[in-house]
Order: sequence, then structure tokens, then C-alpha cells
Amino acid sequence: MSELASRAEELDAVDELAAKRAEFVLDEVVYLDGNSLGALPAAVPGRIADVVARQWGELRIRSWEESGWWTAPERIGDRIAPLVGAARGQVVVGDSTSVNVFKALVGAVRLAGPGRDEIVVDATTFPTDGYIAESAARLTGRTLRPVAPAEVPGVLGDRTAAVLLNHVDYRTGRLHDLPGLTAAVHAAGAYAVWDLCHSAGALPVGLDEHGVDLAVGCTYKYLNGGPGAPAYLYVRRELQDRFDSPLPGWNSHAEPFGMRADYRPAPGALRGRVGTPDILSMLALEAALEVWDGVSVEAVRAKSLALTDFFLECVAEYVSAGRVECLTPSAHAERGSQVALRCADAGPVMARLVERGVVGDFRAPDVLRFGFTPLYVGFAEVERAARVLAEVLAGAG
Amino acid sequence: MSELASRAEELDAVDELAAKRAEFVLDEVVYLDGNSLGALPAAVPGRIADVVARQWGELRIRSWEESGWWTAPERIGDRIAPLVGAARGQVVVGDSTSVNVFKALVGAVRLAGPGRDEIVVDATTFPTDGYIAESAARLTGRTLRPVAPAEVPGVLGDRTAAVLLNHVDYRTGRLHDLPGLTAAVHAAGAYAVWDLCHSAGALPVGLDEHGVDLAVGCTYKYLNGGPGAPAYLYVRRELQDRFDSPLPGWNSHAEPFGMRADYRPAPGALRGRVGTPDILSMLALEAALEVWDGVSVEAVRAKSLALTDFFLECVAEYVSAGRVECLTPSAHAERGSQVALRCADAGPVMARLVERGVVGDFRAPDVLRFGFTPLYVGFAEVERAARVLAEVLAGAG
Repeated sequence: MSELASRAEELDAVDELAAKRAEFVLDEVVYLDGNSLGALPAAVPGRIADVVARQWGELRIRSWEESGWWTAPERIGDRIAPLVGAARGQVVVGDSTSVNVFKALVGAVRLAGPGRDEIVVDATTFPTDGYIAESAARLTGRTLRPVAPAEVPGVLGDRTAAVLLNHVDYRTGRLHDLPGLTAAVHAAGAYAVWDLCHSAGALPVGLDEHGVDLAVGCTYKYLNGGPGAPAYLYVRRELQDRFDSPLPGWNSHAEPFGMRADYRPAPGALRGRVGTPDILSMLALEAALEVWDGVSVEAVRAKSLALTDFFLECVAEYVSAGRVECLTPSAHAERGSQVALRCADAGPVMARLVERGVVGDFRAPDVLRFGFTPLYVGFAEVERAARVLAEVLAGAG
Repeated sequence: MSELASRAEELDAVDELAAKRAEFVLDEVVYLDGNSLGALPAAVPGRIADVVARQWGELRIRSWEESGWWTAPERIGDRIAPLVGAARGQVVVGDSTSVNVFKALVGAVRLAGPGRDEIVVDATTFPTDGYIAESAARLTGRTLRPVAPAEVPGVLGDRTAAVLLNHVDYRTGRLHDLPGLTAAVHAAGAYAVWDLCHSAGALPVGLDEHGVDLAVGCTYKYLNGGPGAPAYLYVRRELQDRFDSPLPGWNSHAEPFGMRADYRPAPGALRGRVGTPDILSMLALEAALEVWDGVSVEAVRAKSLALTDFFLECVAEYVSAGRVECLTPSAHAERGSQVALRCADAGPVMARLVERGVVGDFRAPDVLRFGFTPLYVGFAEVERAARVLAEVLAGAG
């Protein structure tokens, strides 16, 4: 056994999260794509079978009350809240991430008031945030200004209404400085909107602590909620009474069953609801979130960094120098829970890796992306992934 | 056996849709709330178990391609299309009805162009359509004009950009004149947006035939897709190239995995997509739609009218004159697939009915609503429902 393989065994032996792996459905594949679609938590199949057969099939319409369907968006939001550093009553689940970006950004612009005419957006963002920001700017009569995150402080001013940033870059895995950037946005008198898709469930976010104004995130990556599971919206408590949603559906009405012609928004987080919640997907997510019972986000972060450190070490050891370029920062303070490696033949390399039982993903044109979910990825798997990667890159795989 | 009970037996004996009931999970309850939440189709539990355990649990990320997840929104849209009289390629599934109303109405206003500054909306609409229309008007700088459907032709003119109407009124069950109103909207040079929530799956809609511009609908009523199942959006083929969505998420990009900073909309129905589709709910809906195999919407409509006619006849026979007032039109051309009865004590009456195994619903302040889903409601059930209703209303129940 190689030195690195021995080290992996030792690291696995002292991994305080190792037992969590048994709460997922996994096999012999090394699954490093949890930053795209989290693995299936073992509690989900039984729960969803009950939701379908008993709650829908037998209780039918009564389940809106008796099975707690009606209150699921805010109840599940409260389950996500501690994972992103939010006190209760500020997170609501529903709709896609894109739709929540729209709510958050138009809401932020309205909070900022008519005197501020510019929306700043991360120029390196996952594209949907940029497209939706463009639409929000167009519909609210603002100008969109795409800026690399590092340049953001330099462009803020009294024209800035809102700033939309990603906590972790989807491509490179770079972790941005949420506390510092939020403070800079506030110093300019603007509102900070954060996209947590690639950070929530992998590292501490601290929404309340850092005074973030609004935030959105998906639930199908490190939160393992299932394909296309509903996203969430955070609105800081102090802003909720002024939050003015561009999608005021009947579910966000103060009295939804009053069936009134005039819209009067509900107080609190549920002001972010829109239409009838998507119950099957939502309750699958609720079951998936049970794996977080007793888990501290700090322990997850510590293991995440240990996993990515170890992967980088194994890659440095096994892969010929210069064969790949690492896009992910080496400083812990700048790293999320993924490693992105660039090589010209990334597409075919990833296809071969998948054939060999190591699943990451390919992002055009030349990036190999490997996500490390601390709840179910182990160190021996990391060593194996790096070893197989080296073989494939050497043309021997 | 009473004369009406005998008639019910005869009607059930010649019901060409009677065999469809076996494709649903039902019990001894008379379920007349399919206009709120359709009953569970028997194909769904097995399908969703496979989606969860095998597609998500085993194939994981590969299912986006291998299990057809990526193309589900337009594939399922094509399955709904014939039920609403649409040729393929014009219906896409995803998001809630409220979100689709927003897409459709902002899209319609943009089609109409800057010279038209008024949005007309059904003043008796299910509230969410009115709230969202108000938001669409505010964000596009138009004025919202709520008008009773019968008055709509009189207010149309060269200021009218778009008109949002309900095919069937959620409260009274009144069927509006979609062909005539659409023609009137077109004569004024405006765009017609129809909400099909209470008509699709219960009667012919004829979107293509009548030249409807845009339409939306939910899938959890007569389409039995499950609680909060994704809604759909129809954009008439001739308008698709000019349809300019206010929610241009990455899923509606012409090249979604190109990860490009510039938005370039996809052609066809999938321009109505937004974010990552909600796969569990979406594939439950796909399984649910299989009950429509071999069913003609005309046969459904014929049975629907026979059911509501028979219910009204039984109510007239069993219930004391004047005890309830029927809000649903007696003319077939003006009736959807529900019967709404008004009485001052509708709340407690419905609670008692539910206890007695007859499930309809109550709409504040004084309406008893009974929905008749032709695929699984039989005539003997209708007679029993009317009989129990009469007993409850007489205070003997």
C-alpha cells in the first residue's frame, strides 16, 4: 500500500462524520458530483412512498391540513436556516433558484428606492443569475453592471441599488469573502444578495452574523434534496416588512383563503412564497434534511478542507507536473468544497473517469470539476479518484 | 330503490369511461374535490419509487441524460397538448401557475408593444391571477383594469395590450366563452391569455382552433398530477419567436450548457422554461397523465355534463326548495365540471358532509363546491352525494 493510501486509511479512521455515509444510498462509485446532484439520503424513498400512497392517495385534500402540506415551505425553511446561519422565520422554500434570484433582486432594488439606478452582478456568475439580473434591471428601469467579485468594492457608490454575488464560484470553486463584500455593499448604502448554491451545506455561511440582506440557494447539491428540488429564499428579519415581492402569489397573502381581490402580504418569511407548493419534491427534501441532525457545519467545513487538501496532495503526487492546471485557490479562506482542474482534453477525460467509476463533471470548454460532500465522501475514495485520474491523464486508463 | 338510484345504476352501466376508475386509488368516499386535488392515479407510486431509488439513487447525475430528466418539461408538455387542443411543441411544464401567469402576461404585454398601456383582467378571477397581473402591470408600466368577463368586449380598444381570463370560474363553475372572447380580444388588436386551471381535463379547450395566444394551467386538478404539481405554459407557435420571457433562466437558453454570459433564448416551447426542473413532481405528473391514453376529451365532456345534470336533478329532488341556491349556470354552454351551491351555513355543512364520506370543499363565505371528475366519479356516487347532502341540510345528517 502506498503512503497516500495508508494516510487515507488513517484519515478515514478518525473521521467523525464517517458514520453519516450509512445514511445515504451509495455504491462502489466514487461520487464527486454532489456539487451538481447530491446522493440519495436513505430516508427519502420510504418518506416519499408514504407521501404518495397515504397522504395523497388516502387523505387526499385533507393532507393540506392534516399532513402539514400547507406549512411545508416555512417549516422546511426553518430546517435549512441553521445550515446557513439564520435564525428561524427568515427562510422559505419553493420555486427554482432562478425564480428566487428574481424575487430577491427586484426586492432588493425596491428596498434601495428610486434614487439608486444600478445593479451590480458577479461577471463570473453561473449564467442564470446574470440573465435574471438583466431581466430584473430591465423591468425595474435599472442598469446592470457585471463586475468580477474582486472589483466589486471599487464600483460601489450612491448609484448602487443591489449587488448579486456568488458565495462560491460554480466553475473554479473559489470562495468569495461574504463578510467583507457584504460590509462594502452596506457601506455604500446598497443591498447585498448572495447566491449560496455552492456553499450551503459545505461551509459556514453566517447570514445573520454578517448582516446579509437577501440570499437564495438550491437544495439539490450539498443539501441532497433531489433533482430540481425547490430552492429557498432568505430575507433578513429587519427587512421583511418592507420586502415587496415581484411575484405576489396567493400563497404569500396574509389571508390566502380569504380569496380577496386586494393583495395584502403576509408577515415574515412566507411573504416570499408564490403559488401552491410542489409537495412531492418539497417533502422529499424535508426527509433529506434529516441527515443533518446532530451535524455541525464547522465539522463539515473541517472535513471538506481536509478532503480537498488531500485530493490536491494526491493529484500533485500522482499526476505528471503540468498535465493539469488547478483553478481552485490553495488558500483555505478562498476555497469552497470543490476542486477544478483545467486540461485541454477535459471532456474525454471526464467521460473515461466516469467509465472507471469516478464521477465528477465537465464544464465546457476545459474544466474537470470534482465536488467533495463531507457527509458521504471518504479519504480512501479521494485517493482512488486521484489515482484513477492520473492513469486516465497518462493515457493508461 | 328510489327512481333516481335506479337511474344512476343504468347510467353507470352504459358509462364508456367507467373502466377508467380502476386506474385510480379510490375508496368508499365519494370524492367530489378533484377540482382542487385530483385522486392518485395507480401508476404513480411505482413510477415515483423507481425515479427515486433507481434514477436518483443509482444513476444519480447520469439521469439528466439517461432517464430523460432534461427533456421532461417539453415532453410532458406534449402529453398535455392534446388535452387542451394544442399541436406539439407549444406547451412546456414547470413552475407554479402563478409564475406562469407572470411569464404569460408580461410576455403578452411585450408582444403588444409600447403603444398599448392597459391590461384587462377578469375581476372575478381566482385571486392569484389578479395579484400577479397587478405586479405585471406595475413592472411593465401598464394600468390594470379588472372587469367582469361579460363586460370585457365593451372595454377593449387600442389601449388594450393583453387580457387575462379564466376559462372556468373557480367559484361558480361558470364556463366562459373562450372562442368569442378571444376573437373580441383579437379584433381589438390585443393578446388573449387564458387560465385553464378549471377546464383542462374536464372539457375541450381548443387552444389552436380558437387562436388563443398564451395560456397557463395547473396539473393537480382534473389532470391528477399530485399536490402542487408543476403547471404549464402554452405559447402559440406563431408567437414563439417573439415571446420575450421576464424569467429568462438558464434552462431557456438556446445552449444551456454553453454557460455563456449573454442570454440567447431557445426556439419553441422551451423558451418558457426557467430554472432546473423539479423532477420528482414532474415525473409523478408524467405517470399520472397515462390515464388519458385512449380517452377522448369529447367523451369526458359528455360524461361531465351528464354528471352535473344528474347531480342538479338529484339535488332538486332531495333538497327542500330554497335551502340552497345554485350558482352554476344551467345552460351546458356556460357550465364547467363543478356545481357550486350557496347557503349561509356552507362551512359547517361541508364539514359534516366530509364526516359522512362526501368530500367537496367550502369557499368562504357561503359556497359548497362539488367537482365532478369524469374519469373516476360514477352516477351512483352522485346520487349518494345528493342524498347525504339533503340529509345534512335537513339537519338529519
